[in-house]
Order: sequence, then structure tokens, then C-alpha cells
Amino acid sequence: RSHHPVTVMWDLPFLPFSALLGILGIVCVAFVSAWCQYWRGGFALDGSTRTFNWHPVLMVTGMVVLYGAAALVYRLPPAWTGPKLPWKLLHGALALAAFTLAVLGLAAVFRFHNEHGTPNMYSLHSWLGLATVLLFSCQWLAGLSAFLLPWAPGWLRALYKPLHVFFGATILMLSMASCLSGINEKLFFSLKNGTAEYKLLPPEAVFANTLGLLILLFGVLVLGALARPSWKRPDADSPDTRQVPALLWGH
Amino acid sequence: RSHHPVTVMWDLPFLPFSALLGILGIVCVAFVSAWCQYWRGGFALDGSTRTFNWHPVLMVTGMVVLYGAAALVYRLPPAWTGPKLPWKLLHGALALAAFTLAVLGLAAVFRFHNEHGTPNMYSLHSWLGLATVLLFSCQWLAGLSAFLLPWAPGWLRALYKPLHVFFGATILMLSMASCLSGINEKLFFSLKNGTAEYKLLPPEAVFANTLGLLILLFGVLVLGALARPSWKRPDADSPDTRQVPALLWGH
Repeated sequence: RSHHPVTVMWDLPFLPFSALLGILGIVCVAFVSAWCQYWRGGFALDGSTRTFNWHPVLMVTGMVVLYGAAALVYRLPPAWTGPKLPWKLLHGALALAAFTLAVLGLAAVFRFHNEHGTPNMYSLHSWLGLATVLLFSCQWLAGLSAFLLPWAPGWLRALYKPLHVFFGATILMLSMASCLSGINEKLFFSLKNGTAEYKLLPPEAVFANTLGLLILLFGVLVLGALARPSWKRPDADSPDTRQVPALLWGH
Repeated sequence: RSHHPVTVMWDLPFLPFSALLGILGIVCVAFVSAWCQYWRGGFALDGSTRTFNWHPVLMVTGMVVLYGAAALVYRLPPAWTGPKLPWKLLHGALALAAFTLAVLGLAAVFRFHNEHGTPNMYSLHSWLGLATVLLFSCQWLAGLSAFLLPWAPGWLRALYKPLHVFFGATILMLSMASCLSGINEKLFFSLKNGTAEYKLLPPEAVFANTLGLLILLFGVLVLGALARPSWKRPDADSPDTRQVPALLWGH
């Protein structure tokens, strides 16, 4: 590949970057699990706060880490050549796994609220989070209909593709904002008494605040990777490459 | 401009879009001001909660609305031709105004906490918000040094520019997440008693939750506008246009 000498200095191969991102994703899942296991009493299906604890773990794993992995599938260099169908299936399958975990994560919090007579869907966190998952369900169904099922005509795929890309990044941003507002809210709920009060910044608060910043870092790196021009699949179907041959773009 | 027929369907002129965005920004400022004025007791400089009330108003106005305006300066078609200096000055001045409001907004919450013996900087919201403002101060100083002051060599400007663009969008995302976690937290603090409890979704909660969604919509639209290829300034200094003449790109 030929690049301008100055931009070469930021040139970074995708695979080592994505390996680091994978490690960061695993660290996020480990942090949220450790928080719920060590400080919040662990996991159960009995409708108690131990049922609630599935909520943060499943949402972070689904809507941030698996979602991020799904979003980056087309950035893998092997996905740039050969038939696109296997990569579409991988993208759709990872997104479906993310969505399934998100639905289970919502079920956990609804179950917990209903068991305790707590109303659902009143906080800004809940509005934001539900809007995120609803948008994601529309995105998945529209992606399936337009790109995997064989019936959508080429012009419709081309028309929908920039919207799918835009909403893909937007949903990840909404997920990040939902996670951060949720962690913040949970710490105010849980850390109320004596020396463990949130405002006294006990170890749990430092740990969960750090989890929030790690989620943010993971999401920002995914969004940065998505936006990076030199990591984008040179797409023979896209209007851009119909106008200018891919070779002229430096790929 | 020549575009592929399919992408023409999403073609939208920047000026009407930015007028709508301006209205949405004013609505955000009006909502956060109305919330603090009508439900939270209004504004004062006495260290009470009426001093705190400056915090949400100044942060939303500075870190979201003015920041968004600053980010979009180079998308204005008049900025595409002629000398770049006046637009750089406008970009830097709007960013400085945004930063000034943010610092005043931080002063308001520190003053309120100190007056009441409340610790500072313990919640995830506070960590996130302070990180956002600190990153913004670095971004502003680096932008001034590299792009406005005459001493930076061309290769350094070209090297720094993609970083400036990346952090510009990232800081706006962090601002949005900070605002949403802050509104959520404030509603849990303020709506505690009787029929006005947050979980019973009183009118104030609906209003402030809606404010959160409006801030999100504003931020997502700004980020979408920044990402839109056809709204980007065809930049004679950029490595891209050094490789391929701008005419070939359909501008």
C-alpha cells in the first residue's frame, strides 16, 4: 500500500490492534463480573439483587463487547477479498448473540423490579437503555432483510448501507452512555451506609468507576477503528469505488 | 457536484440541516434552564443548590451546544474557499467560549460541594466529566499551538490533524455521556419524597429525561454531520487530496 509519508506515522496494522481490543473487552467483562461477584453478592435466578447482577454483566458483554466485535468484522483483512457471505453471516451471528444477551439482561432487571414492586422504565438510564436495544433490534432486522436475504434489490442495499453504518456507530455510543449512567446509578443505590458510602470513595467505587472508564475506552477505540479510512474494506459495491478505481485510493 | 444516483437520495444541504441543529441546540439550553428554574429553585451565587443549578446549564450550553457549533465550523460551505484563517479563528473562539462555560460550570459544582462539606470527584459522572474537560483543554491548547500559531511545521500539522479530528469527536461523545449520567444522578438526588419520587415518574422526571434524549439527539446529529464525506471541506493540505485531485472525488 502506498501512503503519504506523514500519515504512515499513524499507520497501525489492524490485527495487533484488534488483539489488544479483544484483551480490553475481556478485561471489561472480567471487571463487571468481579464487581457483581465480589461486592454485590454474586448471581442467582431467584428474583433478588443476585438476579439483578446478571443485568450489568449481560449488557456489558452483549451491547458493548460482542457488539463491538460484530461491528469490526468487515475490518478484518481476510474479509476484504473473496466471497462476502461468510463475513456477513459472522457479522449477523455476533450481532444476534449480542442482542440475545441484551434481552436476557433486560429480563434480569425487569424480573428484579417486578419481584420487589419497583416500577420499571422511569430513570433516564432505563429510557436510554431501552431505546438502545429497540434501535438495535430494528438495525438487526433491517440488516438481515437488506443484506442477507436475497430479495432486496441492489439500489435498496446501496441506499440503506450508509444508514446501517451510521446507526451501527450510534447504537454503540448509546450503549456506552447507558452503561455509564447505569454504573453511576447502581453505585448510588448500593453504596449508602457508613464507611462504604459512595461519596467516601470505597474500593468498590474506585473499581466500578474504573470499569466505566474501561468501557468508554473500549467503545471509543471501536468507533475510532470503524472511522479509520485505511481499515475500511475496499468495497466493489460502494458508490465511491464506482466513481474512482480502488487503486487510486492508495489501497 | 456529481454523485452516484443512489447516494443522491440522502443528499441534504448543510445549511438547512445546521439551522435545524441550531434550533435543537437552543431547545436543549431552554430545557436545561427551564428545569433548573422551574423545578430546582432557579439561580444564585450563594453556594446553595441555586448555585449548583448553574452547573447543568453551563455544561450543556458549553460542552454540548457551543462545542457542537465549534466542531461544525469547517462544514460551512463558505469555509471551503478563500483564506482559512478567519474560520480557524471562529473555530478556536467558539471552542474557547465552550471551555470557559465548562470551567464556570465546574466552579459552580465545586463551590456547592465545598459549601456543604460534600466530597468532590467521587462519582463516575464526576470522573467522566472532569476527564472530558481536561481532554478538551489539551485539545484546545494543542490546536492553538499546531494550527493557529505560526511556528508548527507543515509535517507536524499534517501529523496532528487526524488526532485532533478523532479527539474532537471523542470529547463530544464523552460530554454526552457526562450529561446523561449527570441528569440521571441529579434526578435520583432530588426526587426522593412522596408523590414526587423519581420512580413514580413525576412531570419533572419526564421533562429532564426528555432533556437527556434531546442532548443525545443533538450530539448524534453533530457527529453524523462531522462524519458525512460530502460535507467535508475539500482540503488542499490533506494527504488525501495530495494523492488524488479533488475533482476525481466528485466534489
